[in-house]
Amino acid sequence: MLERVLTGDRITGKLHLGHYVGSLKNRVLLQDRHECFVLLADVQALTTHFDRPGLIREHLRQVALDYLAVGIDPGKSTLFVQSLVPEIAELTVYFSMFVTVNSLRHNPTIKSEAEARGYTDMYYGFLGYPVSQAADIAFCKAALVPVGEDQIPHIEQTRKIVRRFNDLYAPVLVEPRALVGERLEGLDGNGKMSKSLGNAIALDCSTAELTDKVKRAKTDPSRIRKHDPGHPEICPIYGYHQAFNTDEAVEIQESCAKGSIGCTDCKAKIIQAMDGLLDPLRERRRLYEGREAFLDEVLISGTERARAIAKETMGEVREAMKIDYFARK
Amino acid sequence: MLERVLTGDRITGKLHLGHYVGSLKNRVLLQDRHECFVLLADVQALTTHFDRPGLIREHLRQVALDYLAVGIDPGKSTLFVQSLVPEIAELTVYFSMFVTVNSLRHNPTIKSEAEARGYTDMYYGFLGYPVSQAADIAFCKAALVPVGEDQIPHIEQTRKIVRRFNDLYAPVLVEPRALVGERLEGLDGNGKMSKSLGNAIALDCSTAELTDKVKRAKTDPSRIRKHDPGHPEICPIYGYHQAFNTDEAVEIQESCAKGSIGCTDCKAKIIQAMDGLLDPLRERRRLYEGREAFLDEVLISGTERARAIAKETMGEVREAMKIDYFARK
Ligand code: SF4
Ligand code: SF4
Repeated sequence: MLERVLTGDRITGKLHLGHYVGSLKNRVLLQDRHECFVLLADVQALTTHFDRPGLIREHLRQVALDYLAVGIDPGKSTLFVQSLVPEIAELTVYFSMFVTVNSLRHNPTIKSEAEARGYTDMYYGFLGYPVSQAADIAFCKAALVPVGEDQIPHIEQTRKIVRRFNDLYAPVLVEPRALVGERLEGLDGNGKMSKSLGNAIALDCSTAELTDKVKRAKTDPSRIRKHDPGHPEICPIYGYHQAFNTDEAVEIQESCAKGSIGCTDCKAKIIQAMDGLLDPLRERRRLYEGREAFLDEVLISGTERARAIAKETMGEVREAMKIDYFARK
Repeated sequence: MLERVLTGDRITGKLHLGHYVGSLKNRVLLQDRHECFVLLADVQALTTHFDRPGLIREHLRQVALDYLAVGIDPGKSTLFVQSLVPEIAELTVYFSMFVTVNSLRHNPTIKSEAEARGYTDMYYGFLGYPVSQAADIAFCKAALVPVGEDQIPHIEQTRKIVRRFNDLYAPVLVEPRALVGERLEGLDGNGKMSKSLGNAIALDCSTAELTDKVKRAKTDPSRIRKHDPGHPEICPIYGYHQAFNTDEAVEIQESCAKGSIGCTDCKAKIIQAMDGLLDPLRERRRLYEGREAFLDEVLISGTERARAIAKETMGEVREAMKIDYFARK
């Protein structure tokens, strides 16, 4: 059997270049040699957006379009909607029996996200995010999970949960490993590229939008005159060269440090490189845009495929837990 | 539409007279005028017995047999297995988005059960018991829930969860009310009759077992000689007269207080009354005993019926939450 890969995104808005570098790029590469599952995580979006459910419906097809645009091939990868695989909810409930509240409270990602959101009293579902993520990964027995570095504690917790399940009942689940993607700085230089911080470049942006955004991006503030020596390591633009203009990145670094390249020229180069990356995405997007029935078909048939596997796994899970009461009929 | 009733029991052992007085009796009465659902709560049993899953399988059919024995009629009531209705797990997950961890921690039943079990660190699923119970009740839109008094805080929390759901999304769920049954003292006079305290009279006990248990039951310790005046209000046997020998209970109370009846005679009377109650149960039990295929058929067809209703409700829930992405196909 091909090793299975599971990744996905919370459906809270359209995807951007940070997602591309952190995980989407890896998914496209992996789909040729692995059985890939791509989760449209609407249930997990609800943990923080339960009071804006319309938002999820609005973005579901947008994210599916983003996937097709980056080159995720629905013939190779299985795109599916989390809430339409009830077996994930079942597995979440079973896992929750033996995961302690304290181990969730001490999960670094939960801690920092709760702080960032100013939660004094967490919602039960929010606290259980790592349990639900473990179920996402375990139901399809994924061995490999391409994620951003901020998700590493979740994968660690998934590994623990899977080990505990296998110890308690029977070794039917697979302990996954993380494939950690690169991190992309936001346009404001104040942290990771993220939609909620408003410092992101969406995958569907036009050349004009891209140009405008990059032109207004933060650079090294010590470069006041064109020939001032710069500090590329603190400049998001240099990070973009490393990610999208790899061949020239070393040269850019040196020129910036010496003050032999100005920020305007440096930005022009990265705009060109990014636009070159986005161009085929735009072309593929045009192929699918407006074909809602096709998109739906991709999601519906993918979800069916995911469910078939989920049912198989749950059969084994129930047998292991000895709650397969009528299985022999 | 007939008002729906939902009750059930955690599958951790066979049922006893405490269950009968607290809830089973009401269920039998209600099944003629209501649409009754009887939940075999195996998932909730896992919250405290996840490490002994074989135990649940062992007791599932035993509890079903107890139900038929007390007179729950599978033609009138729907008996179903919780873990085989994945929609309950789904609804639990949706409810968990907007229930806070603190409101669960402060639930009096959770608090006292956690203390009784000596939990310093609760399991996530244990803490979420009231959320899962709300889903049990809400999925079938039950209006009435026959429960013991210790369950009142759970029903209160269910009402809050249902109200919150209806406010957040759309008024599709029903706020249930509790039908509180009587409380039966255990044979040791140290608290409620309960299997785990070893002070219970199982519904399937023989006349000999019953006699033996009642003979060894605690009575008023101040009655040393036969004509010592007694305090029936602190004697479990008097409670049994109130529950099972109603006609004579007042007389017994007076005779005990005056010292005109001895404990041996008093016990003989209640043994006779209880045996009279248990006799038709034994007869019905004999009808079904050994007919495993029939029992399974009752549970399988009941579960199918419950699932059909669960699917209907979940359709409305998804629509209310605006996550009915492909509903119009
Ligand atoms: S030259 Fe390029 S890397 Fe250096 S500060 Fe300007 S934009 Fe940043
Ligand atoms: S006479 Fe009956 S009620 Fe009174 S103490 Fe004895 S057993 Fe209890």
